[in-house]
Amino acid sequence: MTVLYKSDPVRGAIWAERFAQLAPDIAFRVWPDIGDPSAIRYLVAWQPDDLAVTLPNLEAVFSVGAGVDQLDLTRIPAHLPVVRMIEPGIVDGMVEYVTEAVLAIHRDLFDYALQQQARIWAPMPLRPAASRRVGVLGLGVLGTAVLERLRLFGFPCAGWSRSPRDIEGVECFAGDAALGAFLARTDVLVCLLPLTGATRGILDRRMFAALPEGASIVHVGRGPQLVAGDLIDALDRGQIRSAVIDVTDPEPLPADHPLWTQPRVRLTPHIASATSAVPAADALLENLRRHRAGEPMIGQIDRSRGY
Amino acid sequence: MTVLYKSDPVRGAIWAERFAQLAPDIAFRVWPDIGDPSAIRYLVAWQPDDLAVTLPNLEAVFSVGAGVDQLDLTRIPAHLPVVRMIEPGIVDGMVEYVTEAVLAIHRDLFDYALQQQARIWAPMPLRPAASRRVGVLGLGVLGTAVLERLRLFGFPCAGWSRSPRDIEGVECFAGDAALGAFLARTDVLVCLLPLTGATRGILDRRMFAALPEGASIVHVGRGPQLVAGDLIDALDRGQIRSAVIDVTDPEPLPADHPLWTQPRVRLTPHIASATSAVPAADALLENLRRHRAGEPMIGQIDRSRGY
Repeated sequence: MTVLYKSDPVRGAIWAERFAQLAPDIAFRVWPDIGDPSAIRYLVAWQPDDLAVTLPNLEAVFSVGAGVDQLDLTRIPAHLPVVRMIEPGIVDGMVEYVTEAVLAIHRDLFDYALQQQARIWAPMPLRPAASRRVGVLGLGVLGTAVLERLRLFGFPCAGWSRSPRDIEGVECFAGDAALGAFLARTDVLVCLLPLTGATRGILDRRMFAALPEGASIVHVGRGPQLVAGDLIDALDRGQIRSAVIDVTDPEPLPADHPLWTQPRVRLTPHIASATSAVPAADALLENLRRHRAGEPMIGQIDRSRGY
Repeated sequence: MTVLYKSDPVRGAIWAERFAQLAPDIAFRVWPDIGDPSAIRYLVAWQPDDLAVTLPNLEAVFSVGAGVDQLDLTRIPAHLPVVRMIEPGIVDGMVEYVTEAVLAIHRDLFDYALQQQARIWAPMPLRPAASRRVGVLGLGVLGTAVLERLRLFGFPCAGWSRSPRDIEGVECFAGDAALGAFLARTDVLVCLLPLTGATRGILDRRMFAALPEGASIVHVGRGPQLVAGDLIDALDRGQIRSAVIDVTDPEPLPADHPLWTQPRVRLTPHIASATSAVPAADALLENLRRHRAGEPMIGQIDRSRGY
């Protein structure tokens, strides 16, 4: 049995070593050194291009990342399961990043940074966490973990997802009909949605207008979900007070893009979360074991929904 | 029985209302309207000046803040208990502020802010929390609460205090002899010490040199504990990588002070934590009840140690 890997070669070398150590019966090949194409059963890739079509005996396709939106699902034969990467490092990184972002917004650190630049010492009243309502769009593994950590600070927490969910201590909203009510009660909106046809451009002027005036945004979903011009306009009008943006369209963001220089926008280069090499290899090994044992794999997507 | 309050008048009005509502038997007076001096049993103040000496029937002195370093203990008769303010709002605010600061340091947000200013998109490798050792100087109510929250993120946590302590999941160091070992294992140092003769100027070049090269500082103790010139020098040499500073000497910090403009220093105007008016009134009422019942008061200081 052969696994073909097509992604960052540094990570590929770490994975090859991990496989040799823990699963010496599995041949681990790093693209373009594919060997015998008919021996390849599993493809692990960021972008498989045509490999999913041309490899004759493929049994599953794995994304090396938490999302699968970079895959062109139409170029992956319909009988192949598609699996995204879920490992503890991705979750931990996202919980760290979003917790920091929500606390920075909650504690007015954007304002204090501007005061520091102007050398102004002006304490502002401290708002209790109980008065700062946080809402997370997307209640998958990441959204759920983020909410469970934020709850501990005493923020009133809510979440929205396409299908109904139930999370302890979190007010859960589901479906298009409930989106307006969810947004109307949300002071800090965290976007953790997958990128699909339905979520492309979802963070637009209509959504910003549905939030309370002066709300803030933490965008850690995917770049094409945000209409950057609408955000800048909402910031200018004060409808949106501040934004923490980790994903952009395109990435890298061109140096002349206006998002770089907004005073109340913090921009980071898609670093909120990343797979750690060794835990990711272990997560893949566990999924291979499950697949061969006929058990459900962790992170297998519903191809009809696209996530 | 009369309580005399001498501090911020806005808060005084809120406290007066709270007392009238919950403890109508207690006369609550706001300085300078002191009425009959001989009726005053309890003094609540930021700075009592000579009142603790001149009021003939005083039974206890309460600080309106979490610290008592603003009190001149030599001007408070030795038989009077001195009590600092401990209420949930102070603890929650400090946990929020320090968690945000440690996460911002951990996730390289100082570097990313400088990159944003230069419009540079350059992701850096993500370090797991397990490799970022956090250490808290001062293991009182605040230090303990901060460590209990930081532990959840997977940071290896340690604390140092003058006398031995035991906190689950936290490596506790005690006394001068253990300070060097504590500092040598600390990548992010949080100062939550009370201000005493022994801690004045404690954050100096010797302490910075005892930390691993490239360590960071979160200073939420008291301004005079930090030797600002030594910090700036340690930042220039790279011994200290970044610092989050909430307390300065003096406060407000003069506009021409060099701390304002250090690129890797975040400065906030003593806002990490503050008593919330209503919970603070309730904490005082509880302590008055305890004092009259002969029970120990919450936050009573050891006057020989000064905290």
